[in-house]
Amino acid sequence: MTASVYGHTFARWRAACGGAWQDYTHHAFVEGLRDGSLPRASFLHYLVQDYVFLVHFARAWSLAVVKADTLDEMKVCAGTVDALVNHEMALHVQTCAAAGIDEATLFAATEAFENIAYTRYVMDAGLHGDFLDLMAALAPCCFGYGEIGTRLAATAAPDTPYRDWINTYCDDGYQGAMVTVGQMLDRAVTHRLGDAPTTSARWPRLQARFDMATRLEVAFWEMGLRGA
Amino acid sequence: MTASVYGHTFARWRAACGGAWQDYTHHAFVEGLRDGSLPRASFLHYLVQDYVFLVHFARAWSLAVVKADTLDEMKVCAGTVDALVNHEMALHVQTCAAAGIDEATLFAATEAFENIAYTRYVMDAGLHGDFLDLMAALAPCCFGYGEIGTRLAATAAPDTPYRDWINTYCDDGYQGAMVTVGQMLDRAVTHRLGDAPTTSARWPRLQARFDMATRLEVAFWEMGLRGA
Amino acid sequence: MTASVYGHTFARWRAACGGAWQDYTHHAFVEGLRDGSLPRASFLHYLVQDYVFLVHFARAWSLAVVKADTLDEMKVCAGTVDALVNHEMALHVQTCAAAGIDEATLFAATEAFENIAYTRYVMDAGLHGDFLDLMAALAPCCFGYGEIGTRLAATAAPDTPYRDWINTYCDDGYQGAMVTVGQMLDRAVTHRLGDAPTTSARWPRLQARFDMATRLEVAFWEMGLRGA
Amino acid sequence: MTASVYGHTFARWRAACGGAWQDYTHHAFVEGLRDGSLPRASFLHYLVQDYVFLVHFARAWSLAVVKADTLDEMKVCAGTVDALVNHEMALHVQTCAAAGIDEATLFAATEAFENIAYTRYVMDAGLHGDFLDLMAALAPCCFGYGEIGTRLAATAAPDTPYRDWINTYCDDGYQGAMVTVGQMLDRAVTHRLGDAPTTSARWPRLQARFDMATRLEVAFWEMGLRGA
Repeated sequence: MTASVYGHTFARWRAACGGAWQDYTHHAFVEGLRDGSLPRASFLHYLVQDYVFLVHFARAWSLAVVKADTLDEMKVCAGTVDALVNHEMALHVQTCAAAGIDEATLFAATEAFENIAYTRYVMDAGLHGDFLDLMAALAPCCFGYGEIGTRLAATAAPDTPYRDWINTYCDDGYQGAMVTVGQMLDRAVTHRLGDAPTTSARWPRLQARFDMATRLEVAFWEMGLRGA
Repeated sequence: MTASVYGHTFARWRAACGGAWQDYTHHAFVEGLRDGSLPRASFLHYLVQDYVFLVHFARAWSLAVVKADTLDEMKVCAGTVDALVNHEMALHVQTCAAAGIDEATLFAATEAFENIAYTRYVMDAGLHGDFLDLMAALAPCCFGYGEIGTRLAATAAPDTPYRDWINTYCDDGYQGAMVTVGQMLDRAVTHRLGDAPTTSARWPRLQARFDMATRLEVAFWEMGLRGA
Repeated sequence: MTASVYGHTFARWRAACGGAWQDYTHHAFVEGLRDGSLPRASFLHYLVQDYVFLVHFARAWSLAVVKADTLDEMKVCAGTVDALVNHEMALHVQTCAAAGIDEATLFAATEAFENIAYTRYVMDAGLHGDFLDLMAALAPCCFGYGEIGTRLAATAAPDTPYRDWINTYCDDGYQGAMVTVGQMLDRAVTHRLGDAPTTSARWPRLQARFDMATRLEVAFWEMGLRGA
Repeated sequence: MTASVYGHTFARWRAACGGAWQDYTHHAFVEGLRDGSLPRASFLHYLVQDYVFLVHFARAWSLAVVKADTLDEMKVCAGTVDALVNHEMALHVQTCAAAGIDEATLFAATEAFENIAYTRYVMDAGLHGDFLDLMAALAPCCFGYGEIGTRLAATAAPDTPYRDWINTYCDDGYQGAMVTVGQMLDRAVTHRLGDAPTTSARWPRLQARFDMATRLEVAFWEMGLRGA
């Protein structure tokens, strides 16, 4: 198991996820952001869909507040909703505005099926299970984008036109928030599953949630490429 | 721990619940049903409230179908909804009809605060947690009424006017359904917490759910008495 | 607006849905069931996915019990859960058993993305909105399969190997259940939107729910064909 | 209908609520805060319960984010969660700390039945219905405390020991937030019910939600007094 700045739980889930994690974090779409070869049309198609994704992601983190057991969990989740609604989505709004797409258009965009599949899967993980089931479905996006941001910040082509996107996820604000989320997640796991969580009868199903959400990330990138 | 026909999980929760279980299952209201001394007005007040309680109890068992992990869990919970809506509530409808209260009036009755507290606590246990959190909140009503029915069938005054009520809960249909629920509950616990569930980090919080629902049962009887 | 045996609300939604309704109910997959040309492998792939679909559909109808306003709504929705769990799914279990696929395998099947998208979209319609939002997302499957069953019963090739499937949806049990659902839906609309529901500010969004679920039905057939 | 700084919808609900609104906003508990006669023990009992109330109120506003239709609704509700968790609860924490009660004790306090009834009723309004059903249950607390804060700021005894409490609700931060909520609520009503919302078939049930939540506020004050 490779250690992670985002905590033990994520490190365990990522290690057990197998090749799908690499498929997600090193997808052709990501490499196109890195070397600048991604067609602008693909990027804009992705960005519009990702805006709607973030709307539902904010709903899912709000559902996490509903499902929190501790004040710590409530505060971190409420803070994440605020970060999503007031910060991460701003990149999308600004970039799309520069391309002539206003926020009302973004909010009303017709969702691709891959987008619906991913976001509603996450929401239903929360309705179906408890806080951990929801966290397992939320984790791949949070920490995967963190990893991608860090890697691309160090290796991207100097002239990639996608520097703003990369900066959104490598910057201290995003990275710090994800470290906070990862530490909260570790405490949430201990709170519910004790000190040897991988021996819990629930662990394989939490891992399956993480795996499915990772596969849905891959499908999301595919949808982005296809939109070109 | 006293064994129970309703399974190991219930037996554990009941044993750890302390005096509150006795307060609930041997409440003055129950003793009044047994010896026939309960004022008719109290009984009718209780029955109207209990009808509305069962509406929300059916909603809670439906939420359990939403939160089930296995086909077994789905089938037992769906069967319980059917039993509530099509059988248990029939006693209330018939008895109240004989007292001049029709079903539309029952459905629209203003809920006592104790009723709201109990039913919505159960619903929120499901929204907040997982299937087990919901089961822990549902268990005291299910199995407690089963115990009361069995005891009163054996000890009630021959001329108590509440024989129909007693029969509803001692009869084979209700008892068999509760045995089925109890066995499903044991499997649901093993499915999520393994073979030593009382060592789980979650166990004290599940017990606290059971305890609170038991206290809310006591408050419900108090409400019934007060209504006289 | 073409009248429908399933009531006024469905007739309005179907009429406004445009070509997507035809795309769904006359899809190549459906025509393959009708003339018998559908490859067996496609049918089995579809049937396995549809089994998992029905699991979530039963969850969604259970959520409808949670969200019901009236006893009528509760009873119809609870009855639908029972019909799904204890009857419609039996076809899938028997047919798959004959092909060597047991029910545990069905329950554990990995869901296609189109399946996830559809079922979780329906669940989230219920979490996000009220009873009508959920009904608008449930309606295309219920009534569309009813229409397909009726049409194929009258027009299918005498030797199509998919007669059992057709019979499941044209038989009196299914048709009667859908008539009951359609009448309940009409009452539910009047209860919330009054006598001129299409003038309600909510109507376009309910229509959009119906339209999206119809498009997700088309995608589900595509998934079935692709699985060959 | 008396106009309100908190908008048209609230003004309508308050006007139709009848004497219960006066019972709530001029309760003996409130008058005791105003003239300083409220026993300190009652106040502390109330404050501990109100802290737990706010935990669930923050959960309910988070559920409102889940149920929002527009970006405007999402932002206002997410902002309210932040205000509750990071500001309003701070008064409780500080005042209780001065009385020797730390925040962990507050968070773990056993809830009074009146507290459970109120908070879970609000949560279930959201699970059962749509955004408006939830808002109707949230409104009495939000705007009632706003009215009480304004009135007591103008009329409280100069030496009342409850000046900090009064200031929390009369200050520009709280009042401004409630004006924002009230305007969003008016838009949310128009969005769903059109320009003549009181003619909607749903209106009496929304009013009933508001009325019940108002009655639960009265019961909450009673609980505070009784705790002395």
